[in-house]
Amino acid sequence: MKKNQSVILEFIESIYDEYKDLHDGAVADYIPELGLADPNWFGIVIATVDGKLYTVGDTDKEFTIQSISKAYTYAIALEDNGVDHVLSKVGIEPSGDLFNAISLNENGRPANPMINAGAIATTGLVKSDGSEVIEKIRDKYSQFAGRELSIDKKVYQSESNTGHRNRAIGHMLRNFNIIESDPNPILENYFQQCSILVNCKDLAVMAATLANNGINPVTNNRVIDNQYVKNVLSVMSSCGMYDYSGSWMYNIGLPAKSGVGGGILTVLPGQLGIAVFSPPLDDKGNSCRGIKVLERLSQKLNLHTFNVNELSPNAFIRSTLNLTSMSSNKRRNQQETDLLTEHGESVLIFTLQGNITFSSYELIMRAVLSSLNNTKYVVFNLGRVFDVDSHIVELFLKLFHQLSKMDTTLLFCEEDGNLGLSKYFLVEDKEHKNLFFEKLMDVVEWLEDEIIDLYIPRKRDDIAFELKDFKVCNTLNIEDINYLKEKLEPVVFEKTDIIIGQGEDADSLFFLTKGNVDVSFKADHKIHKVASCGPGNLVGEMAIVASGPRSAYITAASAKVECLKLSLHDYEKMSTEAPNLKLELLKNIANDLSEKLRIANKNIQLLI
Amino acid sequence: MKKNQSVILEFIESIYDEYKDLHDGAVADYIPELGLADPNWFGIVIATVDGKLYTVGDTDKEFTIQSISKAYTYAIALEDNGVDHVLSKVGIEPSGDLFNAISLNENGRPANPMINAGAIATTGLVKSDGSEVIEKIRDKYSQFAGRELSIDKKVYQSESNTGHRNRAIGHMLRNFNIIESDPNPILENYFQQCSILVNCKDLAVMAATLANNGINPVTNNRVIDNQYVKNVLSVMSSCGMYDYSGSWMYNIGLPAKSGVGGGILTVLPGQLGIAVFSPPLDDKGNSCRGIKVLERLSQKLNLHTFNVNELSPNAFIRSTLNLTSMSSNKRRNQQETDLLTEHGESVLIFTLQGNITFSSYELIMRAVLSSLNNTKYVVFNLGRVFDVDSHIVELFLKLFHQLSKMDTTLLFCEEDGNLGLSKYFLVEDKEHKNLFFEKLMDVVEWLEDEIIDLYIPRKRDDIAFELKDFKVCNTLNIEDINYLKEKLEPVVFEKTDIIIGQGEDADSLFFLTKGNVDVSFKADHKIHKVASCGPGNLVGEMAIVASGPRSAYITAASAKVECLKLSLHDYEKMSTEAPNLKLELLKNIANDLSEKLRIANKNIQLLI
Repeated sequence: MKKNQSVILEFIESIYDEYKDLHDGAVADYIPELGLADPNWFGIVIATVDGKLYTVGDTDKEFTIQSISKAYTYAIALEDNGVDHVLSKVGIEPSGDLFNAISLNENGRPANPMINAGAIATTGLVKSDGSEVIEKIRDKYSQFAGRELSIDKKVYQSESNTGHRNRAIGHMLRNFNIIESDPNPILENYFQQCSILVNCKDLAVMAATLANNGINPVTNNRVIDNQYVKNVLSVMSSCGMYDYSGSWMYNIGLPAKSGVGGGILTVLPGQLGIAVFSPPLDDKGNSCRGIKVLERLSQKLNLHTFNVNELSPNAFIRSTLNLTSMSSNKRRNQQETDLLTEHGESVLIFTLQGNITFSSYELIMRAVLSSLNNTKYVVFNLGRVFDVDSHIVELFLKLFHQLSKMDTTLLFCEEDGNLGLSKYFLVEDKEHKNLFFEKLMDVVEWLEDEIIDLYIPRKRDDIAFELKDFKVCNTLNIEDINYLKEKLEPVVFEKTDIIIGQGEDADSLFFLTKGNVDVSFKADHKIHKVASCGPGNLVGEMAIVASGPRSAYITAASAKVECLKLSLHDYEKMSTEAPNLKLELLKNIANDLSEKLRIANKNIQLLI
Repeated sequence: MKKNQSVILEFIESIYDEYKDLHDGAVADYIPELGLADPNWFGIVIATVDGKLYTVGDTDKEFTIQSISKAYTYAIALEDNGVDHVLSKVGIEPSGDLFNAISLNENGRPANPMINAGAIATTGLVKSDGSEVIEKIRDKYSQFAGRELSIDKKVYQSESNTGHRNRAIGHMLRNFNIIESDPNPILENYFQQCSILVNCKDLAVMAATLANNGINPVTNNRVIDNQYVKNVLSVMSSCGMYDYSGSWMYNIGLPAKSGVGGGILTVLPGQLGIAVFSPPLDDKGNSCRGIKVLERLSQKLNLHTFNVNELSPNAFIRSTLNLTSMSSNKRRNQQETDLLTEHGESVLIFTLQGNITFSSYELIMRAVLSSLNNTKYVVFNLGRVFDVDSHIVELFLKLFHQLSKMDTTLLFCEEDGNLGLSKYFLVEDKEHKNLFFEKLMDVVEWLEDEIIDLYIPRKRDDIAFELKDFKVCNTLNIEDINYLKEKLEPVVFEKTDIIIGQGEDADSLFFLTKGNVDVSFKADHKIHKVASCGPGNLVGEMAIVASGPRSAYITAASAKVECLKLSLHDYEKMSTEAPNLKLELLKNIANDLSEKLRIANKNIQLLI
């Protein structure tokens, strides 16, 4: 046994051991081929929706799929004809009758596709795509299973030779025009479909393909249009286990289908496919061990569809932040920092997570609306959301409009645009493309700029900062400022100019007086932007606190960037010429660092 | 309309408007009282599992509960008798027959509790708790609805006077001993139960109580033992809509129950209860508008039970960290920092989130096992997990033992112990209580200590640090060290001694040479520990970079704490006596801060 499978595999083995000595039931023997099955054959497979298989027992042994085929041919028929046409030919109500009952209503329509009458009618609905219909069915089943399946010719011949009751049903269906052509070829297809050979692993993958919305989780190929998956699962849940279906839903609570070959498969939508193979059947035609094993698994693992998984807003709202709690990496001068402290609460950032369905949307929306308080911006950070139900995108749009009326702008942060939310907004209004950001730190920086712009009614790129207004200079006296000014050399950069290169020797630091710069580093042949920085800040100051080469690139991000450059040589000279100025500068730098550390630690507390 | 309801309320109103002019169907008139209903009455209510109600239309108008009562009396009967006894009297298979069919099997057992025969038998199973049985039923329904309900005496009298078919059923049930006493009082109880008056809001809350695992979300009182909820929902899903049940599951896909009074309720387990009230019925006895509205809601909001909500490991594993990526707030000296850099990957911290069920467990376990690489500790940080399915705690225990065999220790971090996971571990082995931590930062600190202990085989509390080994001193020459030594005053503290008091004037800083100290601050009358600090670190050094009073408490955390104290006075004197030493110290402090800031920013990137 592999180390990395053992806990779950061990668990399945314990269930296997619990039932391997159960000898109830009898192998089907209405045709001699089925009677040859060894009653001791027994296999269990659990397949996950990402294609992991846990297998115990006889999971490679082949047997005929029999009635399990009904669910899969129903899927094909839905895809070929659409729901309405299929419903006009075959109903979806449990019949309360045995599987081989004729159960036609007054118009000849079979009660549901899981009884033989409905299944034969369903096979009749599969459309040829050029090849033989049975070849299409075999090929589709193979796609569901993820390997080439074949037909057991002997079983087929026996089924065909002895299928008098099914032939009668076929002709009745023809009589009522449910089948609109000669029923005989359809019956042959049906007998062959039931005789397709599968093993327990195949069934688990076939089940997992339904659990995975129609995509085979092993091959990653789509086998059936996802819109029909819930139809197939609904019919399996109401009619899949013959006249044991009500009990099945009550005790096990999962869509399932069994066959007289001894197979049962069951689907935990979005999560698992489970198959059991054991030929001895109970008097309802379901595998005895199969029922017991699945009952036990459902109970032990709490798989019942109607288990209540509680919702909690915390499950979907990972955090709620504002611009006083969360800061971008853009360095701000004192005036800007003060403005953000005062007005940062007018921005609310909700980091959402999980799967956004109607109920989670409702919880989120309620939390948002109850948090509003002169809020100018609401951001939904969707970086950890892995699905937004397309059905409720409309409600996001409505919320957008509602907030607009309250002068609150709704923004989205959607890393790599995977969710495709923006396209719904674009349809309505081209302007909305500006509502989508890719990185949280980008939207935080943008919002900080917006808030600052509201209160500093100038184009910030035009501000030229005075040396005395720099945070690191705010304790210097006029003599020190003047001394410093003498040492500083004005330098000008244009957009994208490299001010400092990563890996260079550090020979200077810069007082940024005008424009913005970006801080980035190169790793794995890529440039990663980590921060930006506006006027009033020092850049490259690590040169004076740490030794070693420059750890990052500093590049001009505005059309024109103006700096005052202090060479390391002049800085060092201060030790003798102006030691107190040097000490004061260093102290202010340390103070600035400690303030940034305090903010960073607060961000960590918020994010933990 | 209130601002904070409008998006969802508007949406429900749009559905209401869509169907208010639908005039299909006819009001039930088999007794005159029902015939009085106005066919225009129409209400829709959505209730969430946290007790929020969205109401549109005639949602206060009272009407008789009728067959919806069958589901709730079934819940009471299960609680009074247990599942096995109830199943011996009433089956759970759809009958395929009309609601008033007798549908008894060969032993007289009704097919299911949603047809009249089964419902009457179910009413017969309700046990008196001292009061009259009907009073108990009325009281229980009132608890489900969250307000006192009453019986419409006129409707009851009419039902009783005209209920010949039901009386016949009652006597048949007595004949087969399904009812073991005089059927007449049971029939009277049944007629009264059907005549209980509810409004559309009541039905939504009754549905939400089932959605909420048996706890009324408005009153927060438990109404029914949660183990029976899935039984009730299963029967509602397979038999709740009479012979429209299969179609209901196919089209709407939610457990539901309707009554001839015009009510329908439906349950989205764990999420919502929805009720619609509109008296005109279709020929199957279900409210016409009710069916249409619920069909539309299910479709528009994607509520079908078998919608596939995809699982993704990312949904459950919020982050995977190790001790090189994540650091505690305990300040480490250079040797310790180096050790953690080298060996920090031998600890893996998985921050889990959401609801841990079997499938999410399987994904998590697989991610854990595939990440192992000479791993000494695995931590499950459960701070954001809101439920661990009790059924799978056993699998956590198994994983614990599996990892033990691989010399990997599994730890849990479970803030406030809400999940109660520790009690399962305690049962097995008392030692396991040491596997549970309350705070992530505590477990990180503990693990750092463990890793360091592995490689520094001394009791760290006994190490006395030399001044030259301090990180902030590592660039000082021997003269500077000696100068500094002269200025330093040894001070000794005992456990819990306050070394620095928050709010005090800062007059000194301390070189911590032996023992550990805690850093904490007082806010809201509580002490919050924010960090700890071991020998080799400076404490109180903010005194020299920032002005103002002390921002935190520093207290002795070891039995004996030894420091070398530098007064601010002596520090200031260095400006003239040893300016280069002062500059060097300050530079090293700034360098240390910038290194901490780098780590903090990395932590933020990991946590975002």
